[in-house]
Amino acid sequence: MELGEYLPFWKKLTEAERRTLAGSVQRRRFEKGQVLHHGSDECTGLILTLDGQLRVYTISEEGRELTLYRLLERDLCIFSAPCMVKSILFDVIVEAEQDTEILHIPVDVYRDLMDNSAAVANFTNELMAARFSDVMWLMDQVLNKKIDSRLAAFLLEESGLDESRKLSITHDQIARHMGTAREVITRMLKAFQADGLVKLTRGGIELLNEKRLTELAADSLR
Amino acid sequence: MELGEYLPFWKKLTEAERRTLAGSVQRRRFEKGQVLHHGSDECTGLILTLDGQLRVYTISEEGRELTLYRLLERDLCIFSAPCMVKSILFDVIVEAEQDTEILHIPVDVYRDLMDNSAAVANFTNELMAARFSDVMWLMDQVLNKKIDSRLAAFLLEESGLDESRKLSITHDQIARHMGTAREVITRMLKAFQADGLVKLTRGGIELLNEKRLTELAADSLR
Repeated sequence: MELGEYLPFWKKLTEAERRTLAGSVQRRRFEKGQVLHHGSDECTGLILTLDGQLRVYTISEEGRELTLYRLLERDLCIFSAPCMVKSILFDVIVEAEQDTEILHIPVDVYRDLMDNSAAVANFTNELMAARFSDVMWLMDQVLNKKIDSRLAAFLLEESGLDESRKLSITHDQIARHMGTAREVITRMLKAFQADGLVKLTRGGIELLNEKRLTELAADSLR
Repeated sequence: MELGEYLPFWKKLTEAERRTLAGSVQRRRFEKGQVLHHGSDECTGLILTLDGQLRVYTISEEGRELTLYRLLERDLCIFSAPCMVKSILFDVIVEAEQDTEILHIPVDVYRDLMDNSAAVANFTNELMAARFSDVMWLMDQVLNKKIDSRLAAFLLEESGLDESRKLSITHDQIARHMGTAREVITRMLKAFQADGLVKLTRGGIELLNEKRLTELAADSLR
């Protein structure tokens, strides 16, 4: 297990810090659909994705989900350890979207490193800023893009992640990613089908016209 | 100028670091309406508010503004120094909402401190997490609250900041805070007036029924 490959601050750690870290991480496997971190009062620890795909999302009081971002290979999740930074006042849920292998880093071990190493603290800063940037992009989408643009962008992103034009995803799943209602998605997908952009199949969606979907994704509210 | 009062990491700095920092900060005054940081390619430096009030907002490609949060006395703004953390991929604009006195901290000085002091880096982490939490709250509002709830919450917040039930604010200014169109706000304010919640005056809005506004602010989409 080459931790140095995954953690850019590895070189800056002391011998003792490396030993402690290496001795505390645990490799774990999660099946597609399993929830790794439940939000609320949990402080699960840091999650480093080795392979697979994780979805990080919020649930509103009203039960509406919104996907904030995905974690792919080599991504590190700090919001699964909200107790580590006391100004984190929001909850996220982390779920395996594919069979996923992770390294789990205990909170107290990482917190100790952060307290003593500027390199680790600054790495954490960069991580937080990257996620913040993701969420700012999403905010712009939600506020300034029409739902058809957002849906087109979402289908293209999914297609990119799956490396396939045939997506195995339900209307309900899409609605939960996008923070909207299933009926809205179904109506919009039917309109996309009528326009020849997609083909709706049993249990899935096939992208037929990626060029026009890309143009649509770039459209804004006004 | 007691920097130690404003910067919690002051005690953790070396004598030399304190001298460098104290020798580089500059006190500046901005008048109401002045823009301190213009976003895009600027790297203005860190802004520590001594008194007054700053508004931090974004502008979409379409020219639509959205207030992310306010900076009040003792708040430190890092997003006016986006070059400091390379994963910050979004722009904000910082504007004085009142006559405001700040301390300006140059980027290179702060960056040096962050690189060498885990205390400074962790303080920066907490700052970023606090702003991230503000934006997550806002995202929930935008996605899950009806516009009348958001408007009620906004009027109450303004009233709290101004310590007055009479707000000197135009419909256009409210629309720019909330990331929506002026017509939407005007229509909603007229409905509020018809319901006895507010009184629309020349150049302002008076809150008449804070209890019902508070109830309305708590309402969600469904």
